[in-house]
Amino acid sequence: MTKKTKDKIIFTAESLLESNEYKDISIREVAFLSGISIGTFYRYMNSKEELLEQLKIKFDQKVYNTLLKQTKGKNPIEKILIFFDTYINYITKYNYKFFVFFIPTLLEKQDFISQSKNLCLLKQYIEEAYESDGFNDIYSQDYIFRTLSSFFIGTIFNWCFSMGKSDMKKDFFSNFDTLISKFKN
Amino acid sequence: MTKKTKDKIIFTAESLLESNEYKDISIREVAFLSGISIGTFYRYMNSKEELLEQLKIKFDQKVYNTLLKQTKGKNPIEKILIFFDTYINYITKYNYKFFVFFIPTLLEKQDFISQSKNLCLLKQYIEEAYESDGFNDIYSQDYIFRTLSSFFIGTIFNWCFSMGKSDMKKDFFSNFDTLISKFKN
Repeated sequence: MTKKTKDKIIFTAESLLESNEYKDISIREVAFLSGISIGTFYRYMNSKEELLEQLKIKFDQKVYNTLLKQTKGKNPIEKILIFFDTYINYITKYNYKFFVFFIPTLLEKQDFISQSKNLCLLKQYIEEAYESDGFNDIYSQDYIFRTLSSFFIGTIFNWCFSMGKSDMKKDFFSNFDTLISKFKN
Repeated sequence: MTKKTKDKIIFTAESLLESNEYKDISIREVAFLSGISIGTFYRYMNSKEELLEQLKIKFDQKVYNTLLKQTKGKNPIEKILIFFDTYINYITKYNYKFFVFFIPTLLEKQDFISQSKNLCLLKQYIEEAYESDGFNDIYSQDYIFRTLSSFFIGTIFNWCFSMGKSDMKKDFFSNFDTLISKFKN
């Protein structure tokens, strides 16, 4: 029963985030829509912060599972493209204000890049591209990673600045080709 | 006298930020190093938040003044290059943790882009490049602005993630050429 109720809470919070800001979502509302009491909510989550942490974990896990599935049998450059495409698909499902709230929490974690399973996948795809001679070795893997991830995080920023109105996918991919062409052999 | 003491407070805080994190700087320390009492500090600033706000204003003003001076007589594409070069010079003078603290405060201001005098200068340089046929008009000015600013903010992010160790200028300019070449006529 425990896991089921916890999943229900996270699922409810996720659905609410598709059209509401994180700060406007109350524990009362999450509990009510999950069909549980506030007391029960607190048996599963210590605080709203813990709920956010769980949402992040679930978000990362969903992206991770999709990546493993979608990249099967693809070449490394295709895998890199799928990486960003999948991320953008998941990000744009949420209210942009979730990321206004979420991004600063990443900045505070100095070990964020090495701890993120998904970013490790991106690093792995870049390594594969490198080793299969897809990338020119005058550029280091780390430099390619920094370039692509910089442009990606900046595009998310601009999407937030536009209050979720800019076309993040178009903005990213129209320049992605330009950037990655430079690294290709 | 008022302005002089206020300037001294801001100057002290700025010097401290070159090697300390904002959160580790105390009002007591700022007051002591400015040669004033804590009571006097509070006559000029209501809180540490107000000090941060003043630091941001001064930072922007310094960048703005430098930009006006350095871009005189330059062509629009050179002005765009000077814009980023000047910004990076000022950013890297501060402890990276100032930006870990500072960037999230920008995200919360939805009108940040239109309110920033410096970003308006960047928009103006792009417009000049556009009107003097420096840029291909298949790309909109707004799109060029979003592309360059995305990459810039992402590079600052990666600099923060590297704990101020990455070479921000090199990271930015090695890709800046690739990005801007696409837009040039």
